[in-house]
Amino acid sequence: MPRLRELGVTPGRLPTGPLNAITDVPGVKVGHVTLIDGQGTLHPGSGPVRTGCTAILPHDGNLFRDKVNAAVHTINGFGKAAGFEQIRERGSIETPILLTNTLNVGQVADALTAYMLRDNPDIGLSAGTVCPTVGECNDGFLSDLRGRHVHQPHVWAAIENAQGGAVAEGNVGAGTGTGCYQFKGGIGTASRRIFDGRFTVGALAQTNMGRREELMVLGAPIGQHFLESHMPETPPGSIMMVLATDAPLTSRQLTRLAVRAGFGLARTGTVSHDGSGDFVIAFTTTLRRPHSPDDMVRQELLFTERGEDINVFFTAVVEAVEEAILNALCMAETMTGRDGNTLHSIPIDKLAELLAYYKRR
Amino acid sequence: MPRLRELGVTPGRLPTGPLNAITDVPGVKVGHVTLIDGQGTLHPGSGPVRTGCTAILPHDGNLFRDKVNAAVHTINGFGKAAGFEQIRERGSIETPILLTNTLNVGQVADALTAYMLRDNPDIGLSAGTVCPTVGECNDGFLSDLRGRHVHQPHVWAAIENAQGGAVAEGNVGAGTGTGCYQFKGGIGTASRRIFDGRFTVGALAQTNMGRREELMVLGAPIGQHFLESHMPETPPGSIMMVLATDAPLTSRQLTRLAVRAGFGLARTGTVSHDGSGDFVIAFTTTLRRPHSPDDMVRQELLFTERGEDINVFFTAVVEAVEEAILNALCMAETMTGRDGNTLHSIPIDKLAELLAYYKRR
Amino acid sequence: MPRLRELGVTPGRLPTGPLNAITDVPGVKVGHVTLIDGQGTLHPGSGPVRTGCTAILPHDGNLFRDKVNAAVHTINGFGKAAGFEQIRERGSIETPILLTNTLNVGQVADALTAYMLRDNPDIGLSAGTVCPTVGECNDGFLSDLRGRHVHQPHVWAAIENAQGGAVAEGNVGAGTGTGCYQFKGGIGTASRRIFDGRFTVGALAQTNMGRREELMVLGAPIGQHFLESHMPETPPGSIMMVLATDAPLTSRQLTRLAVRAGFGLARTGTVSHDGSGDFVIAFTTTLRRPHSPDDMVRQELLFTERGEDINVFFTAVVEAVEEAILNALCMAETMTGRDGNTLHSIPIDKLAELLAYYKRR
Amino acid sequence: MPRLRELGVTPGRLPTGPLNAITDVPGVKVGHVTLIDGQGTLHPGSGPVRTGCTAILPHDGNLFRDKVNAAVHTINGFGKAAGFEQIRERGSIETPILLTNTLNVGQVADALTAYMLRDNPDIGLSAGTVCPTVGECNDGFLSDLRGRHVHQPHVWAAIENAQGGAVAEGNVGAGTGTGCYQFKGGIGTASRRIFDGRFTVGALAQTNMGRREELMVLGAPIGQHFLESHMPETPPGSIMMVLATDAPLTSRQLTRLAVRAGFGLARTGTVSHDGSGDFVIAFTTTLRRPHSPDDMVRQELLFTERGEDINVFFTAVVEAVEEAILNALCMAETMTGRDGNTLHSIPIDKLAELLAYYKRR
Repeated sequence: MPRLRELGVTPGRLPTGPLNAITDVPGVKVGHVTLIDGQGTLHPGSGPVRTGCTAILPHDGNLFRDKVNAAVHTINGFGKAAGFEQIRERGSIETPILLTNTLNVGQVADALTAYMLRDNPDIGLSAGTVCPTVGECNDGFLSDLRGRHVHQPHVWAAIENAQGGAVAEGNVGAGTGTGCYQFKGGIGTASRRIFDGRFTVGALAQTNMGRREELMVLGAPIGQHFLESHMPETPPGSIMMVLATDAPLTSRQLTRLAVRAGFGLARTGTVSHDGSGDFVIAFTTTLRRPHSPDDMVRQELLFTERGEDINVFFTAVVEAVEEAILNALCMAETMTGRDGNTLHSIPIDKLAELLAYYKRR
Repeated sequence: MPRLRELGVTPGRLPTGPLNAITDVPGVKVGHVTLIDGQGTLHPGSGPVRTGCTAILPHDGNLFRDKVNAAVHTINGFGKAAGFEQIRERGSIETPILLTNTLNVGQVADALTAYMLRDNPDIGLSAGTVCPTVGECNDGFLSDLRGRHVHQPHVWAAIENAQGGAVAEGNVGAGTGTGCYQFKGGIGTASRRIFDGRFTVGALAQTNMGRREELMVLGAPIGQHFLESHMPETPPGSIMMVLATDAPLTSRQLTRLAVRAGFGLARTGTVSHDGSGDFVIAFTTTLRRPHSPDDMVRQELLFTERGEDINVFFTAVVEAVEEAILNALCMAETMTGRDGNTLHSIPIDKLAELLAYYKRR
Repeated sequence: MPRLRELGVTPGRLPTGPLNAITDVPGVKVGHVTLIDGQGTLHPGSGPVRTGCTAILPHDGNLFRDKVNAAVHTINGFGKAAGFEQIRERGSIETPILLTNTLNVGQVADALTAYMLRDNPDIGLSAGTVCPTVGECNDGFLSDLRGRHVHQPHVWAAIENAQGGAVAEGNVGAGTGTGCYQFKGGIGTASRRIFDGRFTVGALAQTNMGRREELMVLGAPIGQHFLESHMPETPPGSIMMVLATDAPLTSRQLTRLAVRAGFGLARTGTVSHDGSGDFVIAFTTTLRRPHSPDDMVRQELLFTERGEDINVFFTAVVEAVEEAILNALCMAETMTGRDGNTLHSIPIDKLAELLAYYKRR
Repeated sequence: MPRLRELGVTPGRLPTGPLNAITDVPGVKVGHVTLIDGQGTLHPGSGPVRTGCTAILPHDGNLFRDKVNAAVHTINGFGKAAGFEQIRERGSIETPILLTNTLNVGQVADALTAYMLRDNPDIGLSAGTVCPTVGECNDGFLSDLRGRHVHQPHVWAAIENAQGGAVAEGNVGAGTGTGCYQFKGGIGTASRRIFDGRFTVGALAQTNMGRREELMVLGAPIGQHFLESHMPETPPGSIMMVLATDAPLTSRQLTRLAVRAGFGLARTGTVSHDGSGDFVIAFTTTLRRPHSPDDMVRQELLFTERGEDINVFFTAVVEAVEEAILNALCMAETMTGRDGNTLHSIPIDKLAELLAYYKRR
């Protein structure tokens, strides 16, 4: 399957990073664990399994010792995301960010806690507690959601296998069993370079939202051309959006970026349905907060929000989120899961034709 | 100038109300006072004047005695809107909603307070205080913003002239001097009927936001075709969006609708710029709060948020807001203001051609 | 150990319910599972164990089918509470509320999810997902926090053993290993009857917050008299406060009550320390939300917020929260945990003397 | 009238600044304009007048050019405060902070806008807009509230007369006609020095809140001793709390301080009544934001929130706010206003006796 740009389109006006991925932000790593097992009739607790988890690491040091400035934004709060209260209060993230399926958040949060405990023997003792950050989508149309099949070894493997470089998209990790406008979706990513490459903004999406008829691709009403083919009766879906940048933004400034992720989402057509947990997590890799600072105050390089500068970030976020979602859509292959339920890949050739018809390529 | 639909397009999937205006919500009235005076060089305090105010009345009774359930939502808070803290706390609005220019909010809030005092002799005495609700955009590119030319008689006239029926759009009231993607904009409105006409959702926008290159009309990248013609150097702009419905929604449910106004806005292309005060005010006409209830509890008809029901409201909001903005854009005529500054009307013929080119009509 | 009132004091001005407990709100049930095992040197993962969990059930029906209106409020967000995003969005709670220790939130959320799955075979299928509600305090001064000893059978037992009637306080359930102003604390509860018994407000606290010198008991600076005795070096603590009422309050109104829990907390002396996760969860038992309503709208009895009526709720909340905290303090017995760490019971006789000295009894 | 400490009490544990006033924060200035005119029967619009305004200047430079980092916090939003949306979004304040009476907010916001326009000829033109910051209490029990007697010259005089040094308290400026637990109240201030004088935290309160029976002074239930004497039927009241510090705190950190102002308020006994607009505005004098920064990034000294450091700020805020409120109470003299309505000064001798009785001195 191709990424969106391979269809000959150029979304947005800003240049991408070299990989057009969240890993274009220096130091950011992504790891997936993909769980595909069994087929046929659902036996809750046993399978079939079409799920997984995805880990995003803001840097490859010890995140608990060297936390990153961060923010969260809730567009529609019908979801089970973990860690948001502390991120709001402290303006920082201190663990890898894990994405998984809806009913697995408890187990994944526990596994992530255990991972942090392993590497930080003073957590729970002299170093206080640790706050796992977890997001989710509901992959129960294809997978045995009730089985909660993502266990500690999967979480640890996703973290430990995380790497920079190109990011696998589509039916991988937390996107293994998820949809996108009633097509198959999954993981997608994109990036933008701004200020002549001085800073990078990256986005990664775990898609599961939207009704077919709503789908817009670069503004074209694509969904309306696919109303009759392969239309599954999927349950309400969600989306997790993760933003990364190497600009030294405060949590307030990161919150402003996170709000703009909703604009990128809106451009793909959804109205953020009632049952859709639409969340954004944003972090910077360069404004860090040591767990134990040496001094009460210290010098930091800060972004000044001068004039139009932050608008460039806003545009980068909107473009990267829109493209990350569409990359998830394009890169996902048709998948059949429990009870023969199938989420079809969007027909790429027809999509390309329609984009030409609508003068988008 | 035509409304958007007169170009032969059909935005969205839901039917409009009879007027395709916020006044399709029974009882809602709109009044404008338009101030156009002088031309040529700016003499701060004297003119030229291209401003005004717009009053939206949720019902034609005494709003202080019979408050309406309401909510506000701030997308980007770079603005001077008045009354939001109390609306959040109490979940209700108790005055007409006034829109005006940025530096005039103080005067208009005072005039609105005076209006409420006139009709309610017990305010400030036995009946407590009153909270004026005011929104604004910056029309200083055309108008003598520093002159703050909207005075008490204008505010009172806008309220007293408010009426149901068709709503004047474009260069009227609070939209007299405002823009829209660096074209002339102003006031626009639209509506949707849902559940076979059982309920109506209406939107009214005071537009002033966006950069030309961002403009999307029904998904088509229209702005990029107008990059060289009549491009003014306008200051950062804003948008006020007012939502009305006759469904009995709580303030929490109205907040959910207000969030979706941002999705309608996003579809027109803006990324919600740093200097853009992007605010939403939402109210229902049917779930009211008497100033002095007879009893501690009372029976009320409530919307149950069953299944997909609220998604229909969400779609109605997104569609109505998008169309209201585009109506403001289409209905506004070219206007020249202070120092010869001109905001040009979008060339309607070329817009129509482009919409055809992009297969949107 | 005595409850506060047994010292001969009468906190506040409003009358209590018959049990002076959250279970005075008809239908509310509380269940504890207390885990005490081992002593001596800490062996992380093995013990000693001084922890547990506490379940609060808003009613004894199926909470997923028959959700209760609810709200949350975060005073200081340094905590790992689960479920808050969805409660804010939907204004309702659909599971028992579980309290436990900080690093156990993942496991308890998972166990609570499993409990709901057991009783609702359509969750994860036709009925969508379920959102577990969990709060926590850090009991690591006494207990093997890293061991995360609260497992699924404990959670299920706490729910299934929950009952109306008198509530065990002090070193029980989620309060087994927690402190209170560097004394031993734990679980405390209280209630108020208002409007001549028409409505009840109940509070339950899991205490762990505060520095000794800050402690105020009914306004008297008690803590300053205990600065030299048995002063442990406890880590930063937190507090979970749960409010219940049988008045038909909307989630907005319940949020207003939740804010006042902070006033009750403040009266006990803490300044809400950096590391203190200070959270409030509030629900009503009488304004319910069926999972599948029959109709799009329905008649509901609502509280009108007339005049001073809601102030009576506010006072009830402040009084009940203050007294619940002080009941936790008074009812907790000295406990020695890992590494010989000891949290001492407040010396009750001296406390009584001091309350007399300060003319509080 | 004496300040609280002159009664021989020592509130809190932290040392005060030299003046025990918000002006102990270097550079902060306060100015009052007090309007007292007429007596006898209320003639709305004419008088009697017992009102005024108070200006707090974060520094004596051009606040528009050199904005200060800031935050707001709403405890109970039943109020008409202006400017909050923009402070939340931008994390800064760009005008003097004005306090006045409830129905005068519009006029005062307009006058403050005009003041900024006078000194900044590019506002409304190349420099964008300006956001006035205004707070209020309802002084209508004594004053002709409907008359809105605070006009532009008063606002400008309050700003221009602002000075460092000792701050007038009690019946001055915005506190001229306001109450405090149904006694006369008004303006009060206090400060704390922390980290051996490295930083200062100052508080200024405009009091008007509380019911007599709730009043606590340093924890003693003072109000209950004054239930029969001079008890007026005052309308619901509010409180504005302004916090200043010279520590380089971000807006997120300032928000955390602002939340703690509520703890200081709670210690004086109120439950934050329905009709009480209880708001906090916090700023730092040392982390500034130039209107036009030279560069996209710049080095700034930041507070690291290391360990317990921020708790010292929290304690300073709680103590300073509590003492500021009590200073307003103690320093206010009995005042008779419209219709012979009288707010009595708290009987200082009896207060002193009661504080001794309750062992607070």
